[in-house]
Amino acid sequence: MRIIRKIFKNSRSEEDGIFFNEIQKILGFAPQNLECYRRAFTHRSSNKTDSKGNPLNYERLEFLGDAMLSSVIAAHLFNEVPTGDEGYLTKMRSKIVSREHLNELGRDLDLIRFIDSKVPTQHFGENIHGNIFEALVGAIYLDRGYVYCEKFIRKRVIVPYVDISRLEGKITSYKSLLIEWCQKEKKVFNYDVFEDNGADGQKHFGVKLSIDKKVVAKARATSKKKAEEIASKRAYFAFQERIDNK
Amino acid sequence: MRIIRKIFKNSRSEEDGIFFNEIQKILGFAPQNLECYRRAFTHRSSNKTDSKGNPLNYERLEFLGDAMLSSVIAAHLFNEVPTGDEGYLTKMRSKIVSREHLNELGRDLDLIRFIDSKVPTQHFGENIHGNIFEALVGAIYLDRGYVYCEKFIRKRVIVPYVDISRLEGKITSYKSLLIEWCQKEKKVFNYDVFEDNGADGQKHFGVKLSIDKKVVAKARATSKKKAEEIASKRAYFAFQERIDNK
Repeated sequence: MRIIRKIFKNSRSEEDGIFFNEIQKILGFAPQNLECYRRAFTHRSSNKTDSKGNPLNYERLEFLGDAMLSSVIAAHLFNEVPTGDEGYLTKMRSKIVSREHLNELGRDLDLIRFIDSKVPTQHFGENIHGNIFEALVGAIYLDRGYVYCEKFIRKRVIVPYVDISRLEGKITSYKSLLIEWCQKEKKVFNYDVFEDNGADGQKHFGVKLSIDKKVVAKARATSKKKAEEIASKRAYFAFQERIDNK
Repeated sequence: MRIIRKIFKNSRSEEDGIFFNEIQKILGFAPQNLECYRRAFTHRSSNKTDSKGNPLNYERLEFLGDAMLSSVIAAHLFNEVPTGDEGYLTKMRSKIVSREHLNELGRDLDLIRFIDSKVPTQHFGENIHGNIFEALVGAIYLDRGYVYCEKFIRKRVIVPYVDISRLEGKITSYKSLLIEWCQKEKKVFNYDVFEDNGADGQKHFGVKLSIDKKVVAKARATSKKKAEEIASKRAYFAFQERIDNK
C-alpha cells in the first residue's frame, strides 16, 4: 500500500506538470504546494469553495501579498537609502507598489494566462494584472514563507524595476545613457525588436540588445520602448560591473 | 592583540549590561546588536548622526517597524480567520495596528524610560509611545530578521491583545466571563490590584488574580480595568486549556 501511495503521490497529472513548470520558471524556485498557486489564479466567478464551504479564490491572497510586498520593499529601501527620511521612504514605496506598477508587473509576466474564471478575460479591467500579481506573492508566502517571498520580490520586482535614481527622477533613460557610452567607447550597438504575444492576446515585445555584434541583454515587456529600456538598464549595469572589475 | 580585542569585545559597560538585560526581558530573546535598540529610543532632538553624517534617530525605524507589524498581523489574520474576506481582514488589521492601540502597547511596556532626548518626556504627546513601539519592532528586524520580529509581535501583540472575538465585538469582557465561570464552578476569586509606576511618572497598575487562593494570572497595564481584563483573559484561556485537556 505504501508503495502504491508513493507512486500516486509522485505521479503528477500532465496538466499539473505543465503548471508546475510554468510556475517554477516564474518563481525561480520549485513550488511545494501547487494548490496555493491554483488559488492565486482562481477568480471569484469560478464559485469554488474549500471543504468547509469557504470561498476559494485569490481575493484573500491579494491582501496577504500586498502586506508582504510592502514589508519587503520597506526593508529594501531602508537598507538601500540610508539618507532617506521616513517621508522619503514612504513616498518611494508608494511609487513602487502603485496600482499602475503592479499591473505592469503582472502583465509583463503574462499571469492572466493561468486564470480560472467563468468571465472571459477580455471583460476584466486593467487591475486584474496587479491583483493576481499580489495574490501570487501571497501564495508564495503561504507555500514557502517569508524568505522565499523576499527572494521572489527581489528577482521580479527589485532587480528589474526598482531603480532609486530613476524613481527620484535623476535618470530618465538608460537607453540614452547606454547609447552615449557606446558612442564614447566607439562601440556598435543594435536593438533587435520582435513581437512576442501572450495568451491573452495582449501584444508583447522582445528585445535583444547587441554591442559589437554580441547579444549582451534581453528583455520582454508590453511596449517596445519599455523592453528597450529594460534591456538597456541590464546592459548598462553589466558593463558597469565589467568596468569596475578591470 | 586578538585576545585583548576579545576581552574588550566581551566586556560590556555596566550601563550596556543594564540596557541589554532590560531589552532582553522585553523581547523574550537576546539582542545581538545593541546599537539597533539604542537607535530605536533616540529622539531627533538628541541631534545624533552616524559616521557619514546621516541623522541617527528612531524615525526611519518607525517606517520599518510599521511595515513589519502590518505583514505579521496580516499573516496571522489570514491563518486565523479563514472565513474572513479581504475587506474583513483589512478592517481587523486596522483595529490592531491603530495609533491608539500602538500607543497602549508602548505605554504598557513603559518604553519611554529608555528615551534619549533633549526634550523632557512630559513634553511629548501621546503618540511617542506608539512611535517607539514601532521603532522597536524595526530594530528587531534589523538586528535579528523577520522570524524574530514575528516571534516578538506574537508575544507582545498577538497573544496578549489580539482577540478576534473581542475585535468583532462578540466578547465584550473576559472579566465577566471569568466571574460567571467561577460562580458556576463554585470557585472563590480575588483581584489583587496594586499601583506600579513607570519611570515617566505615568500610573501603572498591576493585578494578581487568584482563584481558590492560588494566583492564576498576573497583568500590568495603564488602568486598573485594563489590567484586570488582561489577567482575566489569561486566566480564562489557562482554564479553558485545562478543561480541554481533561
